[in-house]
Amino acid sequence: METFKAHLDKFIKIDDEEFSSIFSYFQILDVKKKHNLMLEGEICRYKYFVLEGCLRKFFINEKGVEQTTEFAIENWWISDTFAFEKQIKTEFNIQAVEKSSVVMIDFKSQEKLFEKHPIMERYFRITYQRAYAAAERRIRFLHEMSREEMYVHFSSQYPWFIQRIPQYLIASFLGFTPEYLSEIRAKLRS
Amino acid sequence: METFKAHLDKFIKIDDEEFSSIFSYFQILDVKKKHNLMLEGEICRYKYFVLEGCLRKFFINEKGVEQTTEFAIENWWISDTFAFEKQIKTEFNIQAVEKSSVVMIDFKSQEKLFEKHPIMERYFRITYQRAYAAAERRIRFLHEMSREEMYVHFSSQYPWFIQRIPQYLIASFLGFTPEYLSEIRAKLRS
Repeated sequence: METFKAHLDKFIKIDDEEFSSIFSYFQILDVKKKHNLMLEGEICRYKYFVLEGCLRKFFINEKGVEQTTEFAIENWWISDTFAFEKQIKTEFNIQAVEKSSVVMIDFKSQEKLFEKHPIMERYFRITYQRAYAAAERRIRFLHEMSREEMYVHFSSQYPWFIQRIPQYLIASFLGFTPEYLSEIRAKLRS
Repeated sequence: METFKAHLDKFIKIDDEEFSSIFSYFQILDVKKKHNLMLEGEICRYKYFVLEGCLRKFFINEKGVEQTTEFAIENWWISDTFAFEKQIKTEFNIQAVEKSSVVMIDFKSQEKLFEKHPIMERYFRITYQRAYAAAERRIRFLHEMSREEMYVHFSSQYPWFIQRIPQYLIASFLGFTPEYLSEIRAKLRS
């Protein structure tokens, strides 16, 4: 709870009383490693904020292989934004990469939250703006870089990426086979 | 001006007086086809909303070829969100695809606008949320679809895409040579 307050403090000015009221719209959930928080084909009910741990979002491609499109560590939100806003079935899955503790909110509670605490519009305006800015850059990387270059880029920009994420999930994120990732790592080491 | 009011009305409730005050923070700009609104290496001063016409965002890749990453038609915003928020040099260019009329706002005016009219936090929260939702889907497509499949997808989802965008820019967006795009079009017609 203090973690979430400290996070909000970076974006908006609220006192303890207002925070208590804001926090009453959210729920806390502790999940084990590999727990599924969202399943393809189900209504996307929640968006998740990571207090501790790591989540990933993935879909199953035509060949039946899991393709990870996003990771979220501490202080990141993760959801299927499109399906959440429309309250429709999602085409993604969200799973815990590590034992994790998350804050979550459902769509109706979020609507009530905005009504009661419009300051949260500002908080989510800034966080969506940053998420969109990151996505714009990522789209450029997907055009510009080879998958090998992306591995080098993520490794240098986000040290947690290679320290915390299991190799088979890094491979799933970059669209490699685990064997090919091992080859690249060996090549980079030499 | 009525166009922009009608657009805002879809997201927030404001009367004519409040709209006049809100609109005073924005500027209108009319540009000819091929006019450059933003240049790589310059501070990203503005974000642009298309009233009429079409803009595109691109970068020059290692081979010196223009790679288009985004188009914006009527009722869409376009900028380098990352560079705009930080008021730093952009690594993108924005150019008019057609003769266009845009509404633009600079960073400081936007800050003042949020202070005076916090309702605009809600407007930009929703538009960034939708832009991010679209980017999440696009990242999935970039993983999942071949460039040919993306051409078919964009053609069916966004009829304006093939009706309004010149072929060499569609090629630049999809990472094709114009010749290869002609081949695909011929194949799809047959």
